[in-house]
Amino acid sequence: MSERDQVPFPATEYSDRLDRVRKAADDRGLDLLVLTDPKNICYLTGYDTYAFYVTQALLVPVSGEQPRLIVRGIDVTAAQWTTRLSDDQILGYGDEFVVQDAHPMAFVADVIKANGWHHLRIAVECDGGSFSPLAMRILEHELPDARFADSRRLVEWVRCIKSTRELAVMCEAGKISDHAMSVALEAIAPGVAEPAVAAAIYAALVEGVDGLAGSSPWQPYMAAGQRTNSPHCRWTDRRYRVGEPTMIELGAHRHNYAAGLSRTVFLGDPPDAYRALDKAVQRGMAAALDKLKAGYRAEDVKQAWQLATTARGVEKGSRIGYSIGLSFPDTCWVERTVSLAAGDRTVLQPHMTIHLMLAVWLDKIGHSLSETFIITEGEPESVSSLPRQLTVTHTGQPHRAGE
Amino acid sequence: MSERDQVPFPATEYSDRLDRVRKAADDRGLDLLVLTDPKNICYLTGYDTYAFYVTQALLVPVSGEQPRLIVRGIDVTAAQWTTRLSDDQILGYGDEFVVQDAHPMAFVADVIKANGWHHLRIAVECDGGSFSPLAMRILEHELPDARFADSRRLVEWVRCIKSTRELAVMCEAGKISDHAMSVALEAIAPGVAEPAVAAAIYAALVEGVDGLAGSSPWQPYMAAGQRTNSPHCRWTDRRYRVGEPTMIELGAHRHNYAAGLSRTVFLGDPPDAYRALDKAVQRGMAAALDKLKAGYRAEDVKQAWQLATTARGVEKGSRIGYSIGLSFPDTCWVERTVSLAAGDRTVLQPHMTIHLMLAVWLDKIGHSLSETFIITEGEPESVSSLPRQLTVTHTGQPHRAGE
Repeated sequence: MSERDQVPFPATEYSDRLDRVRKAADDRGLDLLVLTDPKNICYLTGYDTYAFYVTQALLVPVSGEQPRLIVRGIDVTAAQWTTRLSDDQILGYGDEFVVQDAHPMAFVADVIKANGWHHLRIAVECDGGSFSPLAMRILEHELPDARFADSRRLVEWVRCIKSTRELAVMCEAGKISDHAMSVALEAIAPGVAEPAVAAAIYAALVEGVDGLAGSSPWQPYMAAGQRTNSPHCRWTDRRYRVGEPTMIELGAHRHNYAAGLSRTVFLGDPPDAYRALDKAVQRGMAAALDKLKAGYRAEDVKQAWQLATTARGVEKGSRIGYSIGLSFPDTCWVERTVSLAAGDRTVLQPHMTIHLMLAVWLDKIGHSLSETFIITEGEPESVSSLPRQLTVTHTGQPHRAGE
Repeated sequence: MSERDQVPFPATEYSDRLDRVRKAADDRGLDLLVLTDPKNICYLTGYDTYAFYVTQALLVPVSGEQPRLIVRGIDVTAAQWTTRLSDDQILGYGDEFVVQDAHPMAFVADVIKANGWHHLRIAVECDGGSFSPLAMRILEHELPDARFADSRRLVEWVRCIKSTRELAVMCEAGKISDHAMSVALEAIAPGVAEPAVAAAIYAALVEGVDGLAGSSPWQPYMAAGQRTNSPHCRWTDRRYRVGEPTMIELGAHRHNYAAGLSRTVFLGDPPDAYRALDKAVQRGMAAALDKLKAGYRAEDVKQAWQLATTARGVEKGSRIGYSIGLSFPDTCWVERTVSLAAGDRTVLQPHMTIHLMLAVWLDKIGHSLSETFIITEGEPESVSSLPRQLTVTHTGQPHRAGE
């Protein structure tokens, strides 16, 4: 086996993606894409390296000339290992661009000029694509004949519809997420320290299950007790206590594809009000799933949730889900395309993947339930097969609330 | 114990930091800082949440008015848990800024206007601070009377000199890094799968040692065999084999402070050429440490390394270290201030912390050795106490090369 066999998808997968991106760019009258978001670069080439803390760029001519990948010199080998690009498609810049006043975007501009692309209509990633105002200024200064446009998340919108192979990988990620969540639900018990559970989760996310290893995970969100009023917290030095809920939101990554999953554990008997909250969320989930199908709009799903839960006294002002997929830690696993929220009129389509995120964070307490779904014409397909109930744990043995 | 006791530093630490930042800003004639880099926000407030995939901003008036922290509405509680800011210093924007065309930077502009700060000289983080060209355009459009300047890494340069308390935390991170590396060195053996070792490393980094838990770690870099020619790779599905080197670069995080550490393991007897490479790196390290002291320039350290290693046939074109400290995964643990590289004339000062990164990545093979040091007037103090030798493992039992 050659090392390049570790590239997760066959060559045709990458050429199909490139075709779709080029078509979308051509439809908008763009000539050249300068992509700096590590997720978009990985999507189109496979390039898979945690070196995105320095400038990286993929130049994609819409005309059909070969893309060029520009990385720091010491990362050229990583591009050779993790992509099928030919060596002349990979360009490395020297460390003088890393440590001194020279900016790597000046090197990118030189590559554009050397290829005669400096007079084209060039799209750059103007918001959230690891592309800074200084980088923009440098390109504008170095390429005065170019006309610049915002990519307006062009690649993100292509990524939004997954291929069959991507869906298979996300199902594998889902299996690992289930495994890690099961480990967490069993580990949480009165007196156990939160970091011990976090460590067990990380190990499960990385080692994986059934011969499927995980890639680098995003930090699991964990909160116990009153901190469950907050969605994005980490473990503390505390130990778990009877009488408190714990929210766990985690996502295994498989070849960098994430499957978000959340569950709640209650140590000891939950108060009636908490059971009522759980029931309201469960009802809301059923209502949301009824609309999480091709043909409905993103906002319809939120509305269905809201109708089912408001009557039960639950208000969730934030969105109840979003597109999920390829994930690098510069921006978490959230894809900035579809949001299940009022005002998002995107029509759901088959092969979209949605993290349905139904956590409720109240003043003093919270409750978390989420799962990753594949949109179809009919019922949405979950990448998880864990039971959806609240887990109630006495004496270290988990029992689901319904049992 | 109230939950806010989990804020890692006392209030005076944060007020000292704010004073230093304000003084540096005042010296440059700035009136208001708009900080968007999650590390800079955490540095000045403690705010510690993996929610930086949406816009966050800390407004710091240089005059002495209270800073304002602007986060997504659902993360206001996280600001309450992880900072000592008063509730009126924390402002949350609604999810309509997350899911629709409204941009959170327009909300930030409104806060600036509401406080009467719209005519000031405002510094923004123009490169690498999670601040996009679109965010810049919005501020310029909304605040036509403001004069904008690039912060030019103002807070990063303040962060470069650590307080005594920060050094103590970095030493704790160093202990955890040592622990995780020891776990890795013992786990790597012929036939063991790489993900199993990665899982053990993550668990050790998070659970920590001696009652010190880690916070979320950055992905450990791992490469075996020919892939050791590449610095920033991850584990693969392969199993370790006799006759191959493995590089491990990891960094425990303690309260988000990282301590970078690298070692190399060789399974079986290393060839003479590999032992010679190890010896050259060891000599280079001794030479570098001789200049890693207050008063020398950053480039002096690189030059000393180069003199010692070039004669032994080792060429390393990239820098041999950099400032390290507070770390969020948007940009790894690398602080973009001091680089040990030709052309960096920064004079080293006591309480700087440097990740001395001596890995060598050759055509077909690599070797890694790195450690995090505190600069003093005399010998640099390592935050690690692991032996610096190449580890040679036979039959699963590690023996260091010198033994």
